[in-house]
Amino acid sequence: MLKSFGYAATSATTPLAPHEFVRRDPGADDVQIEIEYCGVCHSDLHAARNEWGGTVYPSLPGHEIIGRVTSIGKDVTRFKVGQRVGVGCMVDSCQSCASCNEGDEQYCEKGFTGTYGGVEKVIGGRTFGGYSNNIVVKDKFVLRIPESLDAAGAAPLLCAGVTTWSPLHHWKIGKGHKVGVVGLGGLGHMAIKFAHALGAHVTLFTTSPGKEEDAKRMGADVVVISKDKDQMKACKNSLDFIINTVAASHNLDAFLGLLKRDGNMTLVGVPEHPHPSPSVANLVYKRRSLSGSLIGSIAETQEMLDFCAEHKIVSDIEIIPIQKINEAYERMLKSDVKYRFVIDMATLKPAA
Amino acid sequence: MLKSFGYAATSATTPLAPHEFVRRDPGADDVQIEIEYCGVCHSDLHAARNEWGGTVYPSLPGHEIIGRVTSIGKDVTRFKVGQRVGVGCMVDSCQSCASCNEGDEQYCEKGFTGTYGGVEKVIGGRTFGGYSNNIVVKDKFVLRIPESLDAAGAAPLLCAGVTTWSPLHHWKIGKGHKVGVVGLGGLGHMAIKFAHALGAHVTLFTTSPGKEEDAKRMGADVVVISKDKDQMKACKNSLDFIINTVAASHNLDAFLGLLKRDGNMTLVGVPEHPHPSPSVANLVYKRRSLSGSLIGSIAETQEMLDFCAEHKIVSDIEIIPIQKINEAYERMLKSDVKYRFVIDMATLKPAA
Repeated sequence: MLKSFGYAATSATTPLAPHEFVRRDPGADDVQIEIEYCGVCHSDLHAARNEWGGTVYPSLPGHEIIGRVTSIGKDVTRFKVGQRVGVGCMVDSCQSCASCNEGDEQYCEKGFTGTYGGVEKVIGGRTFGGYSNNIVVKDKFVLRIPESLDAAGAAPLLCAGVTTWSPLHHWKIGKGHKVGVVGLGGLGHMAIKFAHALGAHVTLFTTSPGKEEDAKRMGADVVVISKDKDQMKACKNSLDFIINTVAASHNLDAFLGLLKRDGNMTLVGVPEHPHPSPSVANLVYKRRSLSGSLIGSIAETQEMLDFCAEHKIVSDIEIIPIQKINEAYERMLKSDVKYRFVIDMATLKPAA
Repeated sequence: MLKSFGYAATSATTPLAPHEFVRRDPGADDVQIEIEYCGVCHSDLHAARNEWGGTVYPSLPGHEIIGRVTSIGKDVTRFKVGQRVGVGCMVDSCQSCASCNEGDEQYCEKGFTGTYGGVEKVIGGRTFGGYSNNIVVKDKFVLRIPESLDAAGAAPLLCAGVTTWSPLHHWKIGKGHKVGVVGLGGLGHMAIKFAHALGAHVTLFTTSPGKEEDAKRMGADVVVISKDKDQMKACKNSLDFIINTVAASHNLDAFLGLLKRDGNMTLVGVPEHPHPSPSVANLVYKRRSLSGSLIGSIAETQEMLDFCAEHKIVSDIEIIPIQKINEAYERMLKSDVKYRFVIDMATLKPAA
């Protein structure tokens, strides 16, 4: 067994603290990775505090992982020792259902294995995430990270990145499209960068007037304060696609009404409390769609990483030492982050 | 002016009664039609009783019209006197917006002209529908009715038919698809016939156990009683497409959960009271879509009529004399119709 250490929560109410644990020894198709950086996703906080229920403790979060390969199993051909790699939200799936066969592992019909909190198929217990010194992952779920990408800035691409890339890719968004992005946070800021780089005209919808300059620097053509009725009215029936990154319960009709005929708004966040019921007339009278999208496939993640290298895209981040993770959670709750925390894993030391 | 007569409501609370009125004289691009049959749509009742608001009286409903051409304007080339033709929900549109230019007049950005209750652009006032002896319609909005179709049975194709055909056509449903139809009424029974004839596997969802035999005769492969949890559970994640014809407020999640990954449920009815808010997780975790669709374009209507001739499809109807229209409305409210009333306009006589 591989001795590992990281930061974990031991109950829903205790802060994350140093934690020792074991991982499986790398098997024939496994890649062992020394973790350099790990992004901090809102899901990490939900899991650590059991806000979605079902958390098994200790809970060791982190699914925006960047590191270097330190060893490979005998059947691994796609990676070599020393190579920079990434791991996102999934470390395994059934590999036999229709979704897996079609390369959509995120929709695995038996449920994919989450990078943390999933079932560890080899040694039992739960999987542990990236707030740690190392990780062992099946090669099919390991991503190549182009060396030209800033390693820390690339970490959030593994979840925030692909979660916004996947719907843009799936619904074939590009030149000539008018895209709306709702919310400028970890996901929203990536959505702006991608939609812009794909050639679309991008409008950011935010409740915060202070974010205009940032959004425009990222590639937004227009910034609309969504509380301003006149600004919203001016956008009516104008958008082909909206990616809505806001998980808090809100009025979907305000945005559905901005779609053209045949427009689609996709939700990438699941609200704790339901959104008010959207107006059916808003769908029927323009043949609009309301859809949802979950992270992205491994193939899409690789494609997105290569696109990022080509277009020099990384996440806007604030690097923190792991000792500040609990503070970072508190700041995240106040949206006090531009636009993703990334843990520098060099700050992690074995527990005394 | 063309003297005409029919049955109209003169207030929200008075029954339909014989009514004389005038239509515009046929212009250069108009077709004058002697009406033989007119289907009875639930919208007719809503309009006559001002249940959607905005009704201007007298209100003379009817937008499932079949008749014979009695005269044509000098610029009309597509029709000749004596030919059997149809008129559906629209008699005009702006003909210049993006939707009209792309042949989707039903989504006209300035609003199409309804067959009844719309603005009569030539002589002012409101348009009057098909519960009458004749109608004058711009040639672009007149449909060819193949002579092989039963004239009375073809009437409901003009609204109930195209409303279900259009989404099946738009979302390219055919062989290899598993389609669900929710509700077996005027719309649902047409949806079954079309989906079946298009080669799809069809499951009807109904709350009424007595409808199984009818549904199977129409082409349903499976009939599921939607109140039966076990039957519903057996259909989970199995359907590519659902056409939901039920306008009454109901739990959409029960049906969204039956869609496969990437499945789409389209709503063709607008509820008076909102549906309970659908679960976002139900959309996100399978990349499902909830959409809406409004009647269909003129081109789709013609295509559907030609398809019906080829596949020998008409609506299941009960023919009534116009004197029974108020009684028919009451029976419609009790769902006591299999599956559409059609008025035999030969029963209409000029008011004494």
